Amino acid sequence: MKLYEVAASPSCRRVNIFLKALGVEVERVTVNIRGGENLSEAYRQMSVNLKVPLLEIDAETHLCESLAICRYFDEITTNHQYLFGQTALEKAQVEMWNRIVEWQGLIPAFQAFRNLSGVYRDRETCINSWGEESKKRVSEFLPLLEQQLQQQRYIAGKKLTVADISAYVLITFCEAQLQLVIIGSYPHISDWYQALQQHDAFL
Amino acid sequence: MKLYEVAASPSCRRVNIFLKALGVEVERVTVNIRGGENLSEAYRQMSVNLKVPLLEIDAETHLCESLAICRYFDEITTNHQYLFGQTALEKAQVEMWNRIVEWQGLIPAFQAFRNLSGVYRDRETCINSWGEESKKRVSEFLPLLEQQLQQQRYIAGKKLTVADISAYVLITFCEAQLQLVIIGSYPHISDWYQALQQHDAFL
Repeated sequence: MKLYEVAASPSCRRVNIFLKALGVEVERVTVNIRGGENLSEAYRQMSVNLKVPLLEIDAETHLCESLAICRYFDEITTNHQYLFGQTALEKAQVEMWNRIVEWQGLIPAFQAFRNLSGVYRDRETCINSWGEESKKRVSEFLPLLEQQLQQQRYIAGKKLTVADISAYVLITFCEAQLQLVIIGSYPHISDWYQALQQHDAFL
Repeated sequence: MKLYEVAASPSCRRVNIFLKALGVEVERVTVNIRGGENLSEAYRQMSVNLKVPLLEIDAETHLCESLAICRYFDEITTNHQYLFGQTALEKAQVEMWNRIVEWQGLIPAFQAFRNLSGVYRDRETCINSWGEESKKRVSEFLPLLEQQLQQQRYIAGKKLTVADISAYVLITFCEAQLQLVIIGSYPHISDWYQALQQHDAFL
């Protein structure tokens, strides 16, 4: 197996933290996204969405979408981490919180970055006012995360799950790319974030 | 258990088709979204995202997010439908295709509708140019769906899965709310869509 990636991209970071938490190692290939390697014919043959990360299972079988790659490794690895939850209710709660973090956090954060930074201006229409609105919506989502982490140790309850990984990547991305000041401003998010940094997978 | 819903909303349609395919019945409660019932204090006590659908499992336990609700019912119901896939690879491929349909289809479709129709102008900032751009992006996604359905009978492979339910809701929503003409324009999408309509769950 080979994992095609740009190690610094938030979607690749989600997979990399997940694999570390699971204790799985896999061969890596770095993709030159800014040079357009992901738009080449060779990449098109492997990838449905033309993004990173991309997992090559064998010459004929490839997986896109970071959460699909995480789920695949979770299924083929014998482990007792239950990063997608263990009971029916836990699995549903992990799915719920992971989606809330994505739809209310990661999607507006990515849209803010893509529309404001101009990094992808050569390949897509950027609308500044939507970037500003998206950044505002991410900011408005943070109090909900703060409230949840006041009530629960982890995002989806008592245990570390993939929802924490998504939220950790979100917070890091918002601070680095959107200049939002979160650590220090939200005490429960800050405590949770700093506790995760003690975990090997999050280094 | 009770399912809070607005039967016509695309997210509620996803859950309803899923439950029909699974053969599960549940008590329903209609929520008056336009009247703001989902923003009331009583609803806030139950719902993290203030949206429909919302599943009440018991007085203390509620689930938001349509796919989390589907996953919960799939887990608690003895069935051999495998709507989330059966093997590790199938589960990952269903997750991948469902996400591709969501990120490249449903999200831009919802953003097009919310920014262009003005239905939610009383509660959120609408940016017309982003609505137009989002509508263009949904249109640009359709050839990928057409290509996949030329190669495979169902979205994620040989069997009906939740990815088909998401894509079916997407096509119906785009035709009804965004005035995109899809059935008749894309032969493989049209054949697949009409075949699904023969299935009881999609009526």
